[in-house]
Amino acid sequence: MRSFTFFERVSRAFHNNSSHFKLVALCTVSGGGLLAYAEAASSEAVSDKKKVVVLGTGWAGTSFLKNINNPRYEVHVVSPRNYFAFTPLLPSVTCGTVEARSIVEPVRNFFRKKNLDIQFSEAECIKIDAKNRKVYCRSNIENNLNEKEDFVVDYDYLIISVGANVNTFNTPGVVENCHFLKEVEDAQKIRRTVIDCFERASLPNVSEEDKKRILHFAIVGGGPTGVEFAASLHDFVNEDLVKLYPGIKDFVKITLLEAGDHILSMFDKRITAFAEDKFRRDGINVKTGSMVVKVSEEDISTKEMKNGEVTTIPYGMAVWSTGIGTRPFIKDFMKQIGQANRRALATDEWLRVEGCDYVYALGDCATINQRKVMEDIAAIFKKADADNSGTLTVKEFQEVIDDICERYPQVELYLRSKQMSDIADLLKEAKGDVAKESIELNIEEVKTALSKVDSEMKFLPATAQVASQQGAYLAKCFDRMEECEKNPEGPLRFRGEGRHRFKPFRYKHFGQFAPLGGEQAAAQLPGDWVSIGHSTQWLWYSVYARFIAAPKGDCSRHRNPQIFEDVDNHSNSQTVEAVLRYSAMDCFLVSQDIKEPPNINPYLC
Amino acid sequence: MRSFTFFERVSRAFHNNSSHFKLVALCTVSGGGLLAYAEAASSEAVSDKKKVVVLGTGWAGTSFLKNINNPRYEVHVVSPRNYFAFTPLLPSVTCGTVEARSIVEPVRNFFRKKNLDIQFSEAECIKIDAKNRKVYCRSNIENNLNEKEDFVVDYDYLIISVGANVNTFNTPGVVENCHFLKEVEDAQKIRRTVIDCFERASLPNVSEEDKKRILHFAIVGGGPTGVEFAASLHDFVNEDLVKLYPGIKDFVKITLLEAGDHILSMFDKRITAFAEDKFRRDGINVKTGSMVVKVSEEDISTKEMKNGEVTTIPYGMAVWSTGIGTRPFIKDFMKQIGQANRRALATDEWLRVEGCDYVYALGDCATINQRKVMEDIAAIFKKADADNSGTLTVKEFQEVIDDICERYPQVELYLRSKQMSDIADLLKEAKGDVAKESIELNIEEVKTALSKVDSEMKFLPATAQVASQQGAYLAKCFDRMEECEKNPEGPLRFRGEGRHRFKPFRYKHFGQFAPLGGEQAAAQLPGDWVSIGHSTQWLWYSVYARFIAAPKGDCSRHRNPQIFEDVDNHSNSQTVEAVLRYSAMDCFLVSQDIKEPPNINPYLC
Repeated sequence: MRSFTFFERVSRAFHNNSSHFKLVALCTVSGGGLLAYAEAASSEAVSDKKKVVVLGTGWAGTSFLKNINNPRYEVHVVSPRNYFAFTPLLPSVTCGTVEARSIVEPVRNFFRKKNLDIQFSEAECIKIDAKNRKVYCRSNIENNLNEKEDFVVDYDYLIISVGANVNTFNTPGVVENCHFLKEVEDAQKIRRTVIDCFERASLPNVSEEDKKRILHFAIVGGGPTGVEFAASLHDFVNEDLVKLYPGIKDFVKITLLEAGDHILSMFDKRITAFAEDKFRRDGINVKTGSMVVKVSEEDISTKEMKNGEVTTIPYGMAVWSTGIGTRPFIKDFMKQIGQANRRALATDEWLRVEGCDYVYALGDCATINQRKVMEDIAAIFKKADADNSGTLTVKEFQEVIDDICERYPQVELYLRSKQMSDIADLLKEAKGDVAKESIELNIEEVKTALSKVDSEMKFLPATAQVASQQGAYLAKCFDRMEECEKNPEGPLRFRGEGRHRFKPFRYKHFGQFAPLGGEQAAAQLPGDWVSIGHSTQWLWYSVYARFIAAPKGDCSRHRNPQIFEDVDNHSNSQTVEAVLRYSAMDCFLVSQDIKEPPNINPYLC
Repeated sequence: MRSFTFFERVSRAFHNNSSHFKLVALCTVSGGGLLAYAEAASSEAVSDKKKVVVLGTGWAGTSFLKNINNPRYEVHVVSPRNYFAFTPLLPSVTCGTVEARSIVEPVRNFFRKKNLDIQFSEAECIKIDAKNRKVYCRSNIENNLNEKEDFVVDYDYLIISVGANVNTFNTPGVVENCHFLKEVEDAQKIRRTVIDCFERASLPNVSEEDKKRILHFAIVGGGPTGVEFAASLHDFVNEDLVKLYPGIKDFVKITLLEAGDHILSMFDKRITAFAEDKFRRDGINVKTGSMVVKVSEEDISTKEMKNGEVTTIPYGMAVWSTGIGTRPFIKDFMKQIGQANRRALATDEWLRVEGCDYVYALGDCATINQRKVMEDIAAIFKKADADNSGTLTVKEFQEVIDDICERYPQVELYLRSKQMSDIADLLKEAKGDVAKESIELNIEEVKTALSKVDSEMKFLPATAQVASQQGAYLAKCFDRMEECEKNPEGPLRFRGEGRHRFKPFRYKHFGQFAPLGGEQAAAQLPGDWVSIGHSTQWLWYSVYARFIAAPKGDCSRHRNPQIFEDVDNHSNSQTVEAVLRYSAMDCFLVSQDIKEPPNINPYLC
């Protein structure tokens, strides 16, 4: 009877705390003759895994799921979409260049071949209860009785990667009358609506004035999405629709409305100028400095930024693409954790939500709150002052500079912006013309020397690249949670003891494309390399063809043979070279192995 | 001034009657110096063309549009769909084997390269006013104000090819709770719903009983569509979905409900037996002799035909595919023209709607009312009795037998069924053992001789093959309207004078396929050739690949490379031979040139 009670106790220990697992296993082996129990225990231990709940299957969530490999977790994915969509190709779906099916992949495919305990529920998160570590969800599938099912999921760790919704800036009539371009369904709806406009304008008894209105396509927002959609629509109309609807082609008008002074303002000026010039030649009406103040059923009202004049333009279809906003349940969660006044969830550099344990946030729904050097300057000084002399020598500083640069990447960026090779140069600047060896600075002098470094802090853009890298980073952290607990690999904790468990997240920018239609594109690549024109379009195709055609075997050429063949036929040596140079972009595209590409600056965006 | 008045008069003549056109052209030329006017007149004459309004862009309507070539018509097509859908592949769309885009073609593509005055309006016909030759239409595109536009179209000739809608036999709950499989949207909706069922069954907190219900797919109707859908769904579940949803695969059940004794009852018994046997092996639950009497939100009630017992089965998704019904505006039109009690519009053998001039009907919305020999026997006798002797000799009969067989195809079918080579055999049978030359029959004896021939009359099935052949036939008639008015090519008018303008429509049956899943198919080909099994599936692929991959240049391999490649890889000599043998099926598939295939009996269905 005694041994049985022992088993019972061991069993309870398994259930109560999974970290006892290895310890118990040792006990059983040393106890002898207990092999049968050990086996039973290891299958029992399944329910004892840490439960990771992932919200969302966009770039961030999918990248996390693709990269997580540690079988010690039980992963539950909750997302209203059971597929991942390759969003950079959404504008191409609006015009049928690419079929919706070619840009989506079922998320279940990602975990099919993994030896991981992953569950997926097609549902929306409606509330996070961080105190009790629960997530409230609602299925988005209607059942036969037109009801939707609610359920609650417990978590040990919560990963929020739900993206953002469209920001209408509370402009009246936008939600009711405009199309958006964030989801696959949006793109398909736009495609149907464009054709509907052409069909409506072709009906008998439609006046010329009505034809003009119906075939006026208004795009609000001159960012990359708006610009690419305007370009795709222009090509679609001029290459395909004019052949099918020859009688009404002269009534078509495309207008791109932008509140700022230029379209593509986040790009290099050369790209902006090229795009504006190309659109002018194409007959796309670019109205900058013009803010939309109201959208009614048949008219858009805009206000000129320079003189406040309000103009009303009749339209047939309007697409709104001006930026991102916060999802309602995230807003609610932010109130809970004291972040009510922010646009997105603030996290630290390890993607942990500030003020909330066990919760991580990444992608468009989050921003990293980079710690300022000046906030921590006293702690940094203290840690660096190894001999407690009250002053820092260059040597003392150099001992910790790697940790400082890792913890506060703005320091490295600042040095680079000033073309300084070493921290000594910065200290020297503060101290004046003194020999490097004899420099010694007190706390005030160090403050002066580092006073400007925080100006180099940058917010990361809300792009697929950032989200994808964050997902892969977090998966690696989770995979090595225990390993790094024992052997922390992060920088020194300046305000605490020891080292941080992980290195903080670092974004690597691999460039950005802006397809401009007519087989022209612009790309802004790291190191200020700007590429514009026909070859850039083929570079763009090539990069995306890698996603569509290459790496996964079963997604293969069948997915979108047209694009693939175009790339085959047109790949000249210039394109091929560019593709080779940017094979590093793989990490952006397939988000599996982040390799450091040659000569690309970290943390440049 | 005088010449001006002359022009005015001529101009009015143009407007009043287009058949004056050639006459007036002669006048102007003989008048001399009137070239400028003649030119003006010929452009004016555009509005003077006969206006043909075509309702619908299914198999019948599209086949008409593809084949019509005479520029003397102004064609106005009105259809709620601006594309033609290759409906035999709809069941494949439900499971994603084929993409919806691959089976549709914009109708405007068909007339782009034609030198014809064709206009298309995306609208539904809501009323036909045959008295005033007007069609009332309503656009099915909502405008920004959520209104739909109405308009009226005048016609000189009206061609009704609107197909049919689903026949629910007024079973309660069918419209509210069942899916149909007639349109591309239906197939896409079914695909989404199948996945939704799997997602719903995967949600947490769903009981085993609910999982079973949700994953029970019920298909009502054991005709070719229901059978093919059941087979596709079975393959989709067992080849693809079990991999994505391994935990719930054992809950899946597919039930095929059929009120008759067998599924595929219109096929040869060997095919029916093979299909039922295959489905049994596959685990598809085939319930024959079981009529659906009610569909509620979660249950289907069936009544056993043999004992009247009512059973209730819970289901997750139901697809209704039991036959075709009449569209409401067609019902309304049938009342107008005294055909209120029919299922479909009755036409004569030239596809002209009975009791209504200038209106033609074809495809699933129409049936040909084949004239009976016995109704016209007196007229036939009179016309055949060339010497007015009151009796018919074999020679007299043989003079008109070709016309009789053309006008009444049942005569030929009857002779063939009795294995008679000649009408003389029939007459001989009536008269007893008399030398052929000395046979003479009076009217009563002729009636006796021909009394059974009308039993060979058959209704044409509501298939794509019939509709497509009718469209092509009618287009040829329209193209040669004037030519055949002068030189009629049809059979003798037995009840009137002269000859019919055109030969009556004759259906040529090229066989029918029933894909059964798991790369097995059955085909019933003319001459009672039955082909079953794996090679038949490749024959089926090959035949359809011709549509998808071959003839149109730009639709090409890109459309559905997977199917094409499968055909490439698997075509063995047997398949190739079969394809060559059935290259005649082209007419069914591309409906352009109807060629008579070797050894195929006409009017067999």
